[in-house]
Amino acid sequence: MTQIGFVGLGRMGGNMVARIKRDSEHDVVAYDRDAATVKRVADETGARGVRSLADLVEKLDAPRMVWIMVPAGKPTQDTVDELAPLLEQGDIIVDGGNSKWTEDRVRAATLRKQGLGYVDVGVSGGVWGLEVGYCMMVGGPEPAVKKLAPVLDVLAPPTSEASRGALGDRGWAHFGPSGAGHYVKMVHNGVEYGLMQAYAEGFDLFDKSDFDLDNAKIAHLWNQGSVVRSWLCELAARAFELEGDKLAGLSGYTGDSGEGRWTIEDAIAKDVPTPVITASLHARFYSRGNGDFTHRMLAALRAQFGGHATKKSADG
Amino acid sequence: MTQIGFVGLGRMGGNMVARIKRDSEHDVVAYDRDAATVKRVADETGARGVRSLADLVEKLDAPRMVWIMVPAGKPTQDTVDELAPLLEQGDIIVDGGNSKWTEDRVRAATLRKQGLGYVDVGVSGGVWGLEVGYCMMVGGPEPAVKKLAPVLDVLAPPTSEASRGALGDRGWAHFGPSGAGHYVKMVHNGVEYGLMQAYAEGFDLFDKSDFDLDNAKIAHLWNQGSVVRSWLCELAARAFELEGDKLAGLSGYTGDSGEGRWTIEDAIAKDVPTPVITASLHARFYSRGNGDFTHRMLAALRAQFGGHATKKSADG
Repeated sequence: MTQIGFVGLGRMGGNMVARIKRDSEHDVVAYDRDAATVKRVADETGARGVRSLADLVEKLDAPRMVWIMVPAGKPTQDTVDELAPLLEQGDIIVDGGNSKWTEDRVRAATLRKQGLGYVDVGVSGGVWGLEVGYCMMVGGPEPAVKKLAPVLDVLAPPTSEASRGALGDRGWAHFGPSGAGHYVKMVHNGVEYGLMQAYAEGFDLFDKSDFDLDNAKIAHLWNQGSVVRSWLCELAARAFELEGDKLAGLSGYTGDSGEGRWTIEDAIAKDVPTPVITASLHARFYSRGNGDFTHRMLAALRAQFGGHATKKSADG
Repeated sequence: MTQIGFVGLGRMGGNMVARIKRDSEHDVVAYDRDAATVKRVADETGARGVRSLADLVEKLDAPRMVWIMVPAGKPTQDTVDELAPLLEQGDIIVDGGNSKWTEDRVRAATLRKQGLGYVDVGVSGGVWGLEVGYCMMVGGPEPAVKKLAPVLDVLAPPTSEASRGALGDRGWAHFGPSGAGHYVKMVHNGVEYGLMQAYAEGFDLFDKSDFDLDNAKIAHLWNQGSVVRSWLCELAARAFELEGDKLAGLSGYTGDSGEGRWTIEDAIAKDVPTPVITASLHARFYSRGNGDFTHRMLAALRAQFGGHATKKSADG
């Protein structure tokens, strides 16, 4: 039995608490800024709900472990800044969000001076993790990771036969010192952008094809023994079934939460060509209507040298 | 029991004959230009080996089906040209190679005038298909596809539960008239280029990372519940285990067999932006040392305007 505090009970944090409580004897003390969420998660999972970070710290036996699962950036840093002074030497903070790996290094050094441990965990699996398990990429000092292991064990999926040798029984892995977990997760997301864009371009072609093709059927078929079979392709089949082959009800506006641009930033720092990951981020920029000035400038220049006709903008 | 002739008993054709003979009562008459290959495949699989196309046609009962599994382009066309005059009205030729979909249209029309049926089958799964089953994308007239179905059924993998509704019990699908099968397979390969390049860029970053990362371990982990889990990622884990994390024994020279460039060609014809598939093909060009003149010209221009130092080429 291991004891852990959880801060942030949204889609990810709430499901993680549910998986821990469902599949283990671990004691979870759960906090969220929204009191109703705390009550719901406590009722549904059997975690002990608390009303403040101070309350959370008080309910945990030292040395404590507190898993923060709130959005990366300011929300995570604010939580760390509020939590750290409440903790004692030997306690450990776990950041399960998508923090930038360079921030982990600074944060780990700051907390170390206060006698606190810090573990960065990159978590993949989205809302499906509750059932499938979460794929976790871990960075931080060995002793802290060892303490956290019983919690990672229950959150992770059981490993496939082929991967057991490399990973042990459970699907999480420790990749190195502070930042290594979020670094591997950052690149994971960069790769994810490229995979998504590759599928999207292929199905865009099917949508414009000479043939009357059935996208859902193609996505389903590709998962039957083809080289491109993947979980994303399974999600594509699901999306075409739910939304229709034209995805007509969806806007194409595609956001990003930073990992792609950080991947490209590090690729530039290391002189590594990443044309596909970069083009995938740019495709997302285009999807938001960015690049509009570029397009107007192209039209303007084409008109200048060739007298090619331009179109007036709707609002111009 | 269905009867089929197989022409071309290489890695793909030979394994397909083996799967048919292992998992069904179908009668297979097998031919390859190499007599030793015919003998080996016949001995190993129980297929009836023959020494010529004429012999093959003679051994099959009309209406015949002959599956051609030789490289796309001239080898396939030559085989069709040699085979067609030996066949009778109502016989069917199946092209299981990677022919271009526009060639299928021409070929189907030509054969139709001779009273022959034609089915194009895009086959994915590589050397793993013998065990897993082959993912098959099928084009051609309904009656011919129906006749071929018992053979497709045994070659295909059993479908996953989630895809059964869209596909039926077996993992193959008929997408439309002649060319539709190879069209879907062509784009499949274009997507495959993009997926491969996305993973390759990510692992290139790991190779240059500040952390001492274990590529095999990352690839294994990513297959445990992460968003980027896929069969290609399983192959990546396998490659790093066999070749080492540095892939030091491999040359980076990466060929292509046409489907990527045809995908891009059709994307241009349809005005569909495909930056990732295009960049992936260009990355393969670079991998062969192409682009060298570009690079020398960049160096020359940079020297011209900025007086930046150039390097002499080794052979210059």
